[in-house]
Amino acid sequence: MADAAADIDRALEVLIPPAEGPEARLFDAMRYAAIGGGKRMRGFLVLEGARQFGVARDSALRTAAAIEMLHAYSLVHDDLPCMDDDDLRRGKPTLHKAYDEATAVLAGDALQANAFYALAEPETHSDPAVRAELCRGLARAAGPRGMCGGQMLDMLAEMATEALEEAEIGRLQLLKTGKLIEFSAEAGAILGKAPPQLRHAFAAYGRDLGAAFQIADDLLDATASAEETGKRTGKDADAGKATLVSLLGIERARVQAERLAAQAASHLDALGERADLLRALARYTIARRH
Amino acid sequence: MADAAADIDRALEVLIPPAEGPEARLFDAMRYAAIGGGKRMRGFLVLEGARQFGVARDSALRTAAAIEMLHAYSLVHDDLPCMDDDDLRRGKPTLHKAYDEATAVLAGDALQANAFYALAEPETHSDPAVRAELCRGLARAAGPRGMCGGQMLDMLAEMATEALEEAEIGRLQLLKTGKLIEFSAEAGAILGKAPPQLRHAFAAYGRDLGAAFQIADDLLDATASAEETGKRTGKDADAGKATLVSLLGIERARVQAERLAAQAASHLDALGERADLLRALARYTIARRH
Repeated sequence: MADAAADIDRALEVLIPPAEGPEARLFDAMRYAAIGGGKRMRGFLVLEGARQFGVARDSALRTAAAIEMLHAYSLVHDDLPCMDDDDLRRGKPTLHKAYDEATAVLAGDALQANAFYALAEPETHSDPAVRAELCRGLARAAGPRGMCGGQMLDMLAEMATEALEEAEIGRLQLLKTGKLIEFSAEAGAILGKAPPQLRHAFAAYGRDLGAAFQIADDLLDATASAEETGKRTGKDADAGKATLVSLLGIERARVQAERLAAQAASHLDALGERADLLRALARYTIARRH
Repeated sequence: MADAAADIDRALEVLIPPAEGPEARLFDAMRYAAIGGGKRMRGFLVLEGARQFGVARDSALRTAAAIEMLHAYSLVHDDLPCMDDDDLRRGKPTLHKAYDEATAVLAGDALQANAFYALAEPETHSDPAVRAELCRGLARAAGPRGMCGGQMLDMLAEMATEALEEAEIGRLQLLKTGKLIEFSAEAGAILGKAPPQLRHAFAAYGRDLGAAFQIADDLLDATASAEETGKRTGKDADAGKATLVSLLGIERARVQAERLAAQAASHLDALGERADLLRALARYTIARRH
């Protein structure tokens, strides 16, 4: 994963080059938010998925970098004072702390546009049908029936007087983080023009992996330190926020994450040992301490 | 243009349907920002361009609606307290006033994603190469070398101690509003798979039209009332902001807008009377009082 992260950072360097003149500030802010740091799990999923289908490394890297740009934008906007109001992200000050709020809004906006630009450019794949399908998939995962919709549910849950039930929490997390992880797992199959049943297997793997990942994230928030995670922890408890951890308790939540991770891996049974790294990722997701 | 606006609103109704359940608030906010109001100049450009090439009305309407969604998101974010901090837009309270700041950030983000989703879906055009090219064009016009870049220059200009020179103002406005107007004029030619020289003629028309439009907007800000425009006026003078109007004076600025509008129309000479409405739009752009 460290090798993949370094390669993705190099792709991001090309897609968000340092700029001269007055707009340098915008490019600098985009680079601050998107390059360096982060586990690059979404990008790793793209690369590993693409590898199964013999996709050219450069196509896969551009796609991975595009998804990581989109993810970075979502973190920048989530951290804004009017949203979660966070000061620390990936071990450094959040973008609006390092720059200012207006620059953070704009850099997030520009990262989202740039993600679609990267996918739509001919360099990403010679077949325009693949490029259009990548744009469609990313837009769906990012839009009101995906990430933005989940973030809205999250905000409403924080304002509500009654805690969410388990099914509602599951739906919130599926939208907020699950859809983009699902698309990340599916993107390699799209790039490789895989047959539908294989594309669906990767999507199903991503869906279960995303759910396991989210429980693991909530467990970390409840049990790890800011030094370990590079972001403020204990946020959910402080905010009185219902998560599967607060609802089920740490032990039952951990069991459920393990069940989901195993289920994720099982979707790739047909691929044999070629998919060992993706299975290992499912195990790592629930074992990580950062 | 009123007919086009009504048709575009109907297309937006389909692309941003009212939603049930907890995410209704996000869809409501998106609809509040995008449906109803606005001159729909960008959408009108798409429809009129597409008509020249016999493009199916539904393809053109979806594309027009996508560009209007993108434009609406940019207004929502520009109006935020950390940006221009405006209370009035299209004759009603801005989104963060009618809802709240977090909802405005999110609804803007979701409108951007939804614009790309609308373009990338097969319903927009049967040829995926056209869909990919539309996504690419919109992403370029919206990103750091387009609208977001222009907005950054605008913010920096407001903070700077020295006023911008004429060339710098021209560049700022080309990025901030010109690129999206240029793409709107070009989109019909993309949908119609027009030969390159015609596509370039439409882009050149849009570029000059956009520049004329921006001067007309600055003239309105200096001379019209909020009742006429549906937004706060006198903003530029209050902010001590350099525009071509402050730099050249009202009369010379008006002459330059007229010159640009005539130049815009001249790019369409080869099209004959089929392009009369687009030529009329260039004249209207500089004559309007709202």
